[in-house]
Amino acid sequence: MPMEMRSQGRPARGDGEVGRIRLLERTREALKAKPKIDLQRREIALAAGVTPALVSYYYPDKWDLLAAAAKPVIESYTAEVRAILGDEGSPHRKVLALTYLFIDFNFQHGYLLDFYLENSARMARQDDMRHLQEVYGEMMAFFDGLLRDGLMRGDSPAFIQASLWGLCKYVAQQPSLAGLGDAPERDAVLRAQAAKVCDLFLNGAATGSMAEMGGVDHRAPVLSALA
Amino acid sequence: MPMEMRSQGRPARGDGEVGRIRLLERTREALKAKPKIDLQRREIALAAGVTPALVSYYYPDKWDLLAAAAKPVIESYTAEVRAILGDEGSPHRKVLALTYLFIDFNFQHGYLLDFYLENSARMARQDDMRHLQEVYGEMMAFFDGLLRDGLMRGDSPAFIQASLWGLCKYVAQQPSLAGLGDAPERDAVLRAQAAKVCDLFLNGAATGSMAEMGGVDHRAPVLSALA
Repeated sequence: MPMEMRSQGRPARGDGEVGRIRLLERTREALKAKPKIDLQRREIALAAGVTPALVSYYYPDKWDLLAAAAKPVIESYTAEVRAILGDEGSPHRKVLALTYLFIDFNFQHGYLLDFYLENSARMARQDDMRHLQEVYGEMMAFFDGLLRDGLMRGDSPAFIQASLWGLCKYVAQQPSLAGLGDAPERDAVLRAQAAKVCDLFLNGAATGSMAEMGGVDHRAPVLSALA
Repeated sequence: MPMEMRSQGRPARGDGEVGRIRLLERTREALKAKPKIDLQRREIALAAGVTPALVSYYYPDKWDLLAAAAKPVIESYTAEVRAILGDEGSPHRKVLALTYLFIDFNFQHGYLLDFYLENSARMARQDDMRHLQEVYGEMMAFFDGLLRDGLMRGDSPAFIQASLWGLCKYVAQQPSLAGLGDAPERDAVLRAQAAKVCDLFLNGAATGSMAEMGGVDHRAPVLSALA
């Protein structure tokens, strides 16, 4: 009894939980592609293969649906961040594990976190925001520790974190990865990408000769040729 | 005679060029925020402060409007890429200049390039695609040259380019930059950001002690703790 054929909102007896779970799965897919804060109920219904009435039946408030779809993914992600930060391994190993997590998250869920942040702020979901801010704060403390211990250089843990996230987000969205199948092929490719990205992030793309060539002076007006 | 007050599509005599130029400017603004491939005519009209009828008057085909809005920005960007690649300066200087250009472009225009690529592909605008592919190819040749000359390390110029672009795109979208005023304050801040990003990109975030700690083996299954 395909959902597509039902014009009534209420699902058939026994279909309820399957329908709701499927709706949440398909909503996550719809959120993945682009940060569409204005995702319409009929688009979600179309993606889920159900009627807009069924969407309304389960979630009278569209934003409740979007939050319900995103929340388990976010909670799993923040739990993994905490597991990595609390791990016994070396700082190097933790940075590599975070790199893998960032790539895997962006590969699997695209813009879902961007959407969730915007949605939580818009809906003033204080608990959701507080949880994310706590985990973000723990990551900042980790990078700040690396700066203080002289293991990383720079003046801002936020810049460190944003740089690693930006690298991972973009690498995870490369068209060359789009055709990846399911695990274990996907895991192997993403692990190799994580190792490359982590290496670039920690050690840079330049060899010694290039680094010597320019030196780096943050205050130098070296870009005057562009002006 | 504000455009907002006119319910007719056709502009008043003498308003034509101003109206069209303003429409293109506002359309670029609407494209900046998010990669909204499904941007509606009424949203553009709302953002531009004109009627949907006026939008249709100038651009009967919505996609022509979006392409017309994006094209001059893209052409200015590709001209700057070519100017940098053809510059007399050192490779280090060129990478720094590309970093500044990537940050400035993403700061000013957000997702406009993503949109343009999707739109050009969808509309089969062969000339637009070919031009971008040519300039992309020239960037690849530049990075490939750095790899061959031993100034950079790695196996793929595409990975190098994607990494730098991803870093710049994310750094440019940081909330802390959102409140920047116009030049010269903006230029100074973006130049400082470019210097930091270029330094991170070329030399890495780690100090020697961190780099020694882990070594980096691209084949090592170091992430087994996450599995």
